[in-house]
Amino acid sequence: MNAVDILGYVAGILVVISLLPQTIKSWKTKSTKDLSLKRYIIYITGLILWITYAIIIKNGPVAVMNSIGLILASSILYLKLRHG
Amino acid sequence: MNAVDILGYVAGILVVISLLPQTIKSWKTKSTKDLSLKRYIIYITGLILWITYAIIIKNGPVAVMNSIGLILASSILYLKLRHG
Repeated sequence: MNAVDILGYVAGILVVISLLPQTIKSWKTKSTKDLSLKRYIIYITGLILWITYAIIIKNGPVAVMNSIGLILASSILYLKLRHG
Repeated sequence: MNAVDILGYVAGILVVISLLPQTIKSWKTKSTKDLSLKRYIIYITGLILWITYAIIIKNGPVAVMNSIGLILASSILYLKLRHG
């Protein structure tokens, strides 16, 4: 891994950290009423396309970081579908 | 622009669309009390690093889409700093 890749991973980690509180809050409270289902479906579709794109161009940081984002967003979507 | 680039841009546009409602809501209500300042600062730092990374590896979709994300997130940060 070179310095440029590390920069990409650091960038991704910061974005993931910024998404974590919402995920933790949703899991703790099981309350996702204020979250828009439509918004999360669009977001998750976007993340899946980013991952596909990153795999095609063989870009590690974009693939790995969007995959982590996908796991977080999917876990919120799961709560939303289960608890409304 | 090739088909792979287009995939990257479509991915980015979907993620940006999913962020728009929060931005529009914040601008309409001028209320950002529920948004965490710390979260936005970490998110914006992450976006700036993604843009730097994308410029270094000369990746158009990642640079352009994170720049749009940066504009949206910065406009929310501006509201947050101005209105609390």
